[in-house]
Amino acid sequence: MTKQRLALLTLPFLIAAAAPHDTEKLRDAALKDETAWDITEGLTTEIGPRLAGSAAEAKAREWAVRKLKSLGFKNVRIETFDIPGWERGEEKGEIVGPYPQKLALTALGNSGATPAEGLQAELVAFETVADLQAAPADQVRGKIVYIGHTMKAAQDGSSYGYFGIVRRAAPNAAARKGAAAIVIRGLGTDNHRVPHTGVTNFDAGVAPIAAAALSNPDADQIERILKHGEKVTLRLLVTPRRVGTVQSGNVIAEVPGTDPKAGIVAIGGHLDSWDLGTGAIDDAAGVAITAAAAKRIMDAGRPRRTIRVIWFGSEEIGGNGGAAYFSAHKSEPHALVGESDFGAGPVWRFETKLNTVAAPLSAKIEAALRPLGISKGSGTAGAGADLGPWARSGTSAVDLDQNGLKYFDIHHTADDTLDKIMPNELAQNVAAWTAMLSVVANTPEPLVELRN
Amino acid sequence: MTKQRLALLTLPFLIAAAAPHDTEKLRDAALKDETAWDITEGLTTEIGPRLAGSAAEAKAREWAVRKLKSLGFKNVRIETFDIPGWERGEEKGEIVGPYPQKLALTALGNSGATPAEGLQAELVAFETVADLQAAPADQVRGKIVYIGHTMKAAQDGSSYGYFGIVRRAAPNAAARKGAAAIVIRGLGTDNHRVPHTGVTNFDAGVAPIAAAALSNPDADQIERILKHGEKVTLRLLVTPRRVGTVQSGNVIAEVPGTDPKAGIVAIGGHLDSWDLGTGAIDDAAGVAITAAAAKRIMDAGRPRRTIRVIWFGSEEIGGNGGAAYFSAHKSEPHALVGESDFGAGPVWRFETKLNTVAAPLSAKIEAALRPLGISKGSGTAGAGADLGPWARSGTSAVDLDQNGLKYFDIHHTADDTLDKIMPNELAQNVAAWTAMLSVVANTPEPLVELRN
Repeated sequence: MTKQRLALLTLPFLIAAAAPHDTEKLRDAALKDETAWDITEGLTTEIGPRLAGSAAEAKAREWAVRKLKSLGFKNVRIETFDIPGWERGEEKGEIVGPYPQKLALTALGNSGATPAEGLQAELVAFETVADLQAAPADQVRGKIVYIGHTMKAAQDGSSYGYFGIVRRAAPNAAARKGAAAIVIRGLGTDNHRVPHTGVTNFDAGVAPIAAAALSNPDADQIERILKHGEKVTLRLLVTPRRVGTVQSGNVIAEVPGTDPKAGIVAIGGHLDSWDLGTGAIDDAAGVAITAAAAKRIMDAGRPRRTIRVIWFGSEEIGGNGGAAYFSAHKSEPHALVGESDFGAGPVWRFETKLNTVAAPLSAKIEAALRPLGISKGSGTAGAGADLGPWARSGTSAVDLDQNGLKYFDIHHTADDTLDKIMPNELAQNVAAWTAMLSVVANTPEPLVELRN
Repeated sequence: MTKQRLALLTLPFLIAAAAPHDTEKLRDAALKDETAWDITEGLTTEIGPRLAGSAAEAKAREWAVRKLKSLGFKNVRIETFDIPGWERGEEKGEIVGPYPQKLALTALGNSGATPAEGLQAELVAFETVADLQAAPADQVRGKIVYIGHTMKAAQDGSSYGYFGIVRRAAPNAAARKGAAAIVIRGLGTDNHRVPHTGVTNFDAGVAPIAAAALSNPDADQIERILKHGEKVTLRLLVTPRRVGTVQSGNVIAEVPGTDPKAGIVAIGGHLDSWDLGTGAIDDAAGVAITAAAAKRIMDAGRPRRTIRVIWFGSEEIGGNGGAAYFSAHKSEPHALVGESDFGAGPVWRFETKLNTVAAPLSAKIEAALRPLGISKGSGTAGAGADLGPWARSGTSAVDLDQNGLKYFDIHHTADDTLDKIMPNELAQNVAAWTAMLSVVANTPEPLVELRN
């Protein structure tokens, strides 16, 4: 407490010298931000689900252009790109025997389809993807593979990275061995009958099989029956389809800076969502937080560096929007990148990945964030799925890490709806981003490293 | 704390004088009960959903007979009765305009059906059932009625009684005014896309209309759009059907007492469940708790009074099992009745409704329950939906009130699954019931009031 009081007393002096913006004042005012809520409510209510490549995603882009223009951003435009389209169909499942029950399940993105009349087969369960990969094909052929996991909630979301292999790799491994289909315990930390979708991929030349995620209570049920030593037979009807090449796009808006040579500060989130919920925490919150913070800087006076807000398309199916942006803009000097794509929980920590000239930023950002209770972690910033290509290629990056303890309770589910967001927590995010942007957009030292 | 310690010291002495059973010892041993969990797990896993009158409910009765016999109960039998059958069909809904989105909804029990191709109509919203009842018919005719409510979680579940009118009365009122269909905010206190079903009824001569409950996030969405002043159009496909007269039944088991004239202590829960979940908290827990407690008394030696455990059929659609039992057994003297049908949260309070001769029981029950932190409330016992007819006609009753703060989060939903039950809380219930039964089944004074 004493340290924070000290910081509160000394910050205005420290920061006022470096920036035309009063970072402390902007940050604290942002704790009452309503713009981010307005964007989040609007996008989830007036657009709702907006699957990559869908008509709804296109409507979201038009909505975004209107909204960003009305907020006063400059150079608002859409940059389109093509993606392989995929659409959900029917999805039903049941335990046929030994104890008949309906299952709550949903197809994974890029799942293949069952026959139109469904399929029925015995379940073969593996504890891990490695066990499935090691199994002889005749143990798997014609059966429905099941794989569970023990993912637990973690503040930093690290469990998703670790257990994600079940969703990412198991369907392909099952298809390679001739499985009829695969059901996994979905990557969620809740216990509701609301299954978690998410993308999977099949290798070129491997015919996709039906791949679905079960809710945790359904997975529990199957595991209980298996523990009794009984054979389990499932019936599945999962009929998604690939719809060829479709269009997606990024929506870009700017706060023009006074010094075009100082490099762009690129921030954002993703506009697309999975089709089951309204994409409130994933990622209406992220586009809203970053735009609201940029608007606060804009409204306080022109910053030194241009702030570019990017609402990426088609993040969920493989970061296509981020790749398209990197490809189209890699010749432009970017001073720093940062993405908000981990919900709307309060920021509790930040990480950096700073190149040599930008190294002094870390202490300045720390001083600006400390009064919000945000401290520096011991890791490295990755800049999210969409701006990650920049971080990986040497552009400085900052992550403002949100508390993710509840994130995977509703991630990629029909439950990703506006009611899951606490307005005060959303505003705390805006305050953190505003403080960070105020520092980064104005700091006098160069941030763009000259490269050969 | 001091009072509790005193109670712990004095209880064995007080109770040992009155009963062949050591109430304190039985109660405390029951805190490690595993029988109730075994019953709950078995019923939810091996039977699962068991809608009144369904084949699954019949299977549950056979399962129950096997289980109760294996536990050592005597006179285990099924008493069947007829009910009007109803089955869920397809159920889909979407906001067609102004902002298209799919809706999470489920038909209410006894709902009528939409046409097979669904129906589309404008929404007309009312704040209360009274507002709907007061509205001119031409404001409602051909439209889809919407009614919300502001039900909040309450430890004693009282909000359900108050706000329940929305589910119980609004569909009939809407049908009377010629509405095409009705959707209500389901009677739930959660914010998941998991709608809450439950029974509704239409007056004789009123043709049932499609009546469905929306999940809270879906109701929020509709209310947000309405607040914008926009017209909302819905499309519904809800195809349940009445299936004529079908069979349900009660499963009855006994712990025979030494004194047939001392009256029966009748306890139980209900065996049927809604069809969406596996009926874990509603009411596998209740049948399990009461049977496990009765078994503990039985295993400790024959009580004075016969304890009759009744697993009622067809509670959910109108207490048919309770009515059938009352009708068939009303000539038998019942000393006391009590039902467990409010989940598996810990017992925190008890209520009594004691006739004159049974009045001394209250203090004895209080002494037996106080070490579990359970105190006497200021209300009156109702004995639940199934044993309520006895309480209302003058038989003594005890309610062991469970903490219901979370009960209406999952009540009547697909989320009513085993994982929602904490084994230690289930065992606390068994301990409370065991203590109460030990007192009631053995107390030397008469409990059955002589009537003319």
